[in-house]
Amino acid sequence: MIVMTNLQLAMLALVISYCIVYLGIPKAIPIIQRFKLGQEIREEGPKSHYKKAGTPTMGGVVIQLGILVSVLLMALFIKKIDWFSLIMVLTYGVIGFIDDYIKVSQKHNLGLTVIQKLILQIVTAILFTIWAYTHSNIGSVMILPFLGAIDFGIFYIPITFIAIVAITNAVNLSDGLDGLCSGISSITMVFFLIIALQENEEITAIFGAAFIGACLGFLRYNSFPASIFMGDTGSMGLGGGLAAIAIKTHMEIFFLIAGFMFVLEALSVVIQVGYFKYSHGKRVFRMAPIHHHFELGGWKETKVVIVFWTWTAICVCFAFFLYSL
Amino acid sequence: MIVMTNLQLAMLALVISYCIVYLGIPKAIPIIQRFKLGQEIREEGPKSHYKKAGTPTMGGVVIQLGILVSVLLMALFIKKIDWFSLIMVLTYGVIGFIDDYIKVSQKHNLGLTVIQKLILQIVTAILFTIWAYTHSNIGSVMILPFLGAIDFGIFYIPITFIAIVAITNAVNLSDGLDGLCSGISSITMVFFLIIALQENEEITAIFGAAFIGACLGFLRYNSFPASIFMGDTGSMGLGGGLAAIAIKTHMEIFFLIAGFMFVLEALSVVIQVGYFKYSHGKRVFRMAPIHHHFELGGWKETKVVIVFWTWTAICVCFAFFLYSL
Repeated sequence: MIVMTNLQLAMLALVISYCIVYLGIPKAIPIIQRFKLGQEIREEGPKSHYKKAGTPTMGGVVIQLGILVSVLLMALFIKKIDWFSLIMVLTYGVIGFIDDYIKVSQKHNLGLTVIQKLILQIVTAILFTIWAYTHSNIGSVMILPFLGAIDFGIFYIPITFIAIVAITNAVNLSDGLDGLCSGISSITMVFFLIIALQENEEITAIFGAAFIGACLGFLRYNSFPASIFMGDTGSMGLGGGLAAIAIKTHMEIFFLIAGFMFVLEALSVVIQVGYFKYSHGKRVFRMAPIHHHFELGGWKETKVVIVFWTWTAICVCFAFFLYSL
Repeated sequence: MIVMTNLQLAMLALVISYCIVYLGIPKAIPIIQRFKLGQEIREEGPKSHYKKAGTPTMGGVVIQLGILVSVLLMALFIKKIDWFSLIMVLTYGVIGFIDDYIKVSQKHNLGLTVIQKLILQIVTAILFTIWAYTHSNIGSVMILPFLGAIDFGIFYIPITFIAIVAITNAVNLSDGLDGLCSGISSITMVFFLIIALQENEEITAIFGAAFIGACLGFLRYNSFPASIFMGDTGSMGLGGGLAAIAIKTHMEIFFLIAGFMFVLEALSVVIQVGYFKYSHGKRVFRMAPIHHHFELGGWKETKVVIVFWTWTAICVCFAFFLYSL
């Protein structure tokens, strides 16, 4: 049952973070430009994207700020904070920030080395997995389609670890077209927000709502033609936030359905790279991640973005359908 | 309380109508082109829109079909149909169709004369108002912010009449940029869908969900760059559908909040025309409806559309906030 006060608090959190990001980005852009934090464009990406080089990046900092301030303001009312989700979104934001900063200061689109990234991500994921497992409110239960709540015991640990690593990286990969990542992230988060409201998880609902508001506010500037990018600060952070709420609502497995567009983005890269190596140079997609495949197939960037949004909405509907079985 | 089976049925209806429209439009476009049903562009609109002339129009027919088939298919399961909403969406679709057909066959962007339109709309609105008033499940109750359910007695009639005329025309006015009307309509409908689920109004929820699915499917082709327009067939029909669900959920007054972007579109025209006459030629906005004001102010069409979508989402949140007080 949706308790009305929770719904109210969530809606308030959403509007607050929306306003912070909507009003904050115009203030942030000159600062970002002063520090010359312009986006480097991957040389192996579509040629049509070269003209995006130099667009201010690291807008994710303002998204993080919007979520943080909104959650803190709501804590004035309810004296409680979803520390797990908040710290997770901020931690992954910082990881992304380090990567962004190295990219920008070294003037290439590479950032941390693969091995550095891997170690950083594994350590962080282990820490959050332990936190989740030892957290009395989370425990080792996950909700499965058809089967309902199942206690996974010790197997909760590897599954949660994989979920964290996979979700953060998949969300990161989806950040390649104007407005794509913020749009898919906020639509996917609607699923978890409604579940959190339904399950009466007040503080988690507030977090989810603040997350959505920040993404929507960011779309004002990030939608085509983008005047700012979120950078890894944004996409890793949003990935951390989505992983956090999936864990808090015991919906790790449902993320595969509601967040299927992220799964698809990640899978397309795995398939492309795997098949390329296996076949010694053949490709499955015109380019991976899959949003570039559609783009090179003749869809305008704006078309790919909006169609991916609507597909995400359909995935969320499908997740609700399975959830209610 | 959300009863799960209702949620399931609604999600199924949404996915069905999405698929019908998504798969139906490519079949419809050649037929539309054969009958030379290309859009005429208003001469007084922005110059940048002239190039849209000749884009196939009347895509609304497929939207109507998607809603109709989805609702009928769901009726196989539940043996019930929300006849009020279904007939309303179809009736206003037909009114729009007549208008579109005259425009296209006479090769100008005017359609029915103002007086013909007015009479047609007044008669239709009176009939649906009487149906609503005499319908045992609707009655004369409306829900107000702060005050809750109030029986308006005989005053229900003029208010509902005005709501129908205002909503259908406001939605019609909002159809001026690629993807604008279908996007705002589906986001506004999310509010009414969740209310219908909450209030356990099974058939109304199914209708609302089918409506959203049809709009999202249409966005595949209608989002920028649009390869088809919905025409008045679409926008009047969607207006009829939104008015119907507002009436069925007793939320006529809440439409002013959840559907505030439509209110804004309509108000901008009223203010512009009124002030123009009062001041003998001065304007408040660069152009009305207000989406053109932003466009002429330097925002790209895609930017206006996506920002209007996010504002609609904020309005829906605000409506939930007031609803739960």
